[in-house]
Amino acid sequence: MVIERAKRYEQLAETLSALIRDGRLQPGARMPAVRVVSAQHHVSPSTVFQAYELMESRGLIRARARSGHYVNEQAQRVLDEPSSSRPAAQLSEVDVSQRVFSILRAVKDPQVVPLGSAFPSPELFPWARLKQSLASANRLVSPWSAVMHLPAGNELLRRQIAWRHLAAGMSVSADDVIITNGALEGLNLCLQAVTRPGDVVAIESPGFYAAQQALERLSLRAVEIPVDPREGVNLAALTDVLRRDSIRACWFMTNYQNPVGALMPDAKKRELVQLLARHEVPLIEDDVYSELYFGDTYRLPAKMYDENGLVMYCSSFSKTLAPGYRVGWVLPGRFGEKVEQLKLMTTLSASVPAQVAIADYLQRGSYDRHLRKMRIALESQYQQMVQSIAQHFPFEVKVTRPQGGYFLWLELPEHIDALVVHQRALAQGISLAPGPIFSIKQEYKNFIRLNFGHAHTDKIEQALVTLGGIVAAML
Amino acid sequence: MVIERAKRYEQLAETLSALIRDGRLQPGARMPAVRVVSAQHHVSPSTVFQAYELMESRGLIRARARSGHYVNEQAQRVLDEPSSSRPAAQLSEVDVSQRVFSILRAVKDPQVVPLGSAFPSPELFPWARLKQSLASANRLVSPWSAVMHLPAGNELLRRQIAWRHLAAGMSVSADDVIITNGALEGLNLCLQAVTRPGDVVAIESPGFYAAQQALERLSLRAVEIPVDPREGVNLAALTDVLRRDSIRACWFMTNYQNPVGALMPDAKKRELVQLLARHEVPLIEDDVYSELYFGDTYRLPAKMYDENGLVMYCSSFSKTLAPGYRVGWVLPGRFGEKVEQLKLMTTLSASVPAQVAIADYLQRGSYDRHLRKMRIALESQYQQMVQSIAQHFPFEVKVTRPQGGYFLWLELPEHIDALVVHQRALAQGISLAPGPIFSIKQEYKNFIRLNFGHAHTDKIEQALVTLGGIVAAML
Repeated sequence: MVIERAKRYEQLAETLSALIRDGRLQPGARMPAVRVVSAQHHVSPSTVFQAYELMESRGLIRARARSGHYVNEQAQRVLDEPSSSRPAAQLSEVDVSQRVFSILRAVKDPQVVPLGSAFPSPELFPWARLKQSLASANRLVSPWSAVMHLPAGNELLRRQIAWRHLAAGMSVSADDVIITNGALEGLNLCLQAVTRPGDVVAIESPGFYAAQQALERLSLRAVEIPVDPREGVNLAALTDVLRRDSIRACWFMTNYQNPVGALMPDAKKRELVQLLARHEVPLIEDDVYSELYFGDTYRLPAKMYDENGLVMYCSSFSKTLAPGYRVGWVLPGRFGEKVEQLKLMTTLSASVPAQVAIADYLQRGSYDRHLRKMRIALESQYQQMVQSIAQHFPFEVKVTRPQGGYFLWLELPEHIDALVVHQRALAQGISLAPGPIFSIKQEYKNFIRLNFGHAHTDKIEQALVTLGGIVAAML
Repeated sequence: MVIERAKRYEQLAETLSALIRDGRLQPGARMPAVRVVSAQHHVSPSTVFQAYELMESRGLIRARARSGHYVNEQAQRVLDEPSSSRPAAQLSEVDVSQRVFSILRAVKDPQVVPLGSAFPSPELFPWARLKQSLASANRLVSPWSAVMHLPAGNELLRRQIAWRHLAAGMSVSADDVIITNGALEGLNLCLQAVTRPGDVVAIESPGFYAAQQALERLSLRAVEIPVDPREGVNLAALTDVLRRDSIRACWFMTNYQNPVGALMPDAKKRELVQLLARHEVPLIEDDVYSELYFGDTYRLPAKMYDENGLVMYCSSFSKTLAPGYRVGWVLPGRFGEKVEQLKLMTTLSASVPAQVAIADYLQRGSYDRHLRKMRIALESQYQQMVQSIAQHFPFEVKVTRPQGGYFLWLELPEHIDALVVHQRALAQGISLAPGPIFSIKQEYKNFIRLNFGHAHTDKIEQALVTLGGIVAAML
């Protein structure tokens, strides 16, 4: 959410970066002189310098001594994007967990280069300030407060969350918020609130494996909807499915979808909400990456367009502030009572010290500053990883161009088996997330997901060289 | 668990209290002179004085100026105990939540005298020391540690828990422990690990309503097993049910069962485990009250006798140390992988700062000292509440004699409707837990559960007078 605006030089860097991305500034081209930009954009020369420095740090341009700035060659060796997915259309029983678990277990070793990780680097989080807030929470939590506010969650935290949504333009009050043990619990509670065993639920393909696991756990059946790597879920396909099957719920990610990074445009989000409202089908919206956008525009979730209380919004602080604290939240729409009851039946409440610490942190007002730094780091790491891939991978490889989050989705040549790439990479101390875990029917056999949430060190660069070599050798 | 032994005078007080409970020292009788006891028990006179003081504080005896100590009249106006429950024996679909929730909601108001509460008073917990441990955890938790030890839980905490079980005589290693968001999550995970929708599960009647809710949530069917208020689940009835129905799991509480307070004798625990092993039926053992025993003997759980990995043991720190932290654990026996996977699918992990804080607290070694103080407080409150009930309630009322925990289970004359008592009490600012919420078929219409986990203040005493009056008026 944009509560604190991006600084002037960051806005400028964004504007100029867009020219490079569009191809209006070609690789090797000289960047406009500082005084020209300064005059055109009504900013001081030092602001232009700062913008150029930022773009340099992101690997987009390079300064040459005494001759100005030039667009990097690598910035534009653009690999193609994968096309929309076309998952098999029939209903499926879900039986995925064993496969996913065995792969996730392999990825857990801390010695391994974490290209397969689901988290960004913990070094991106504001630990010093968070510790201050936990210390303050520690002073605040009284014996009685610990037993008292069990059900919907800490009042102050719910107010802070509501306030952030409000500031972003959504109409949310503290009473609309239920605190959960991370977004994952929220998603599971929402799913259970609106389904019974045997029901059919629409999920994305490729999509987050936790959705598949949740369906399996609750004995639900799945229908997989294709995903466009830029715009997300295919609404035409969804419309067909809604006409054909009795769909009990949808579970979608509208902002920086995992794994493809798709950002559903605002108009399409509205259309999605209206379509589901006509069919009276709840939407479970997983929005954990929405704060991690590139550039300077926060994108509102589909929940924004929800007039019937049918959208169950789930998010958390685990990807942006405090992994391990396990604090997330749900805006459950009309299903609030049911969600709260399910929570009361299963985990009762989220850990109180963690809730109070995050409430304190939010209240101190530095969350947006932290998020801005984190976004800049992620976008820079994105640029660097894309460049490395362009350099070290065979040119047949296709790569998504996400506008946020920290995942790249790579399509390898068709005959290359991602599970074999996964095995060979792991043998060399590198993890990745192979495509088949993102689909119930083990599709996407020649896709892999890479995490650019870690600083682009030599170790990461070397891992990409190795990975490119593994793929090349399989051609 | 008895890691730190009770002090000498506490042991002596226990021995002498037993004489009163047995009736060998009658109400009004003079207690043996200090020098006699001192000689008989080979302790110093001051130890005897300390023991008498303790017994006085518990309301068992009273000092008279210059003439020694006398057994209190009230200590022996003993009310009858309720007899074994006889729940209807057929299988049931479970549909209880709405009813239970509406009653629990009524009980939540902090202004209300909390005789209906499920928690002991938070004032019984060692908040100052716990704050020290959370502060220390705050220093210890590093960015990487927060993401690293997600799956089974904090290593140090698992080791501390295993060590406590070991010290109590059980063979448990850190690898056998999975940390959960309180015992409630553990119980739910265990239940789901061994059942599929439609399966039949044996539960206690009367029994903890969370078991009923869990069954309902997972679309399971229930068969209710009678409970003896002293010895717990009726094994003959269970044997019949195991022969007749295909039981997929049992969910029982063997120590200080909620609501009746039954303590299953060791031999019976062993028999239970062997019986279930013959039928290959897993036992989910809810053991959250086992540390809250009266006297000085920790009772091992049924898990102690588990040779086949069929017992899934669940406990927590929520009733004994840190409510609101939401930290519990499971010893899942042979179902460890499944339980861990379900956890990974639903809440991922318990809050890391809370886990590390409790590990630190346990390591500092004052848990047993705290537990001992808490047990003494609870036993004293028990004595005081039983006396008040004997004084202020009609003599037809029957009361359990628990040997631990903090619940009394009262049987009112048959025609008295506990739900009406509940309504009338609530109108006077007093909560209680009416019998029907402890059974799927709303049995126990003339039973109520009272919580003696709060200091026996004038307010509590007055509430019992009022409650006794409400019951008397309905005779």
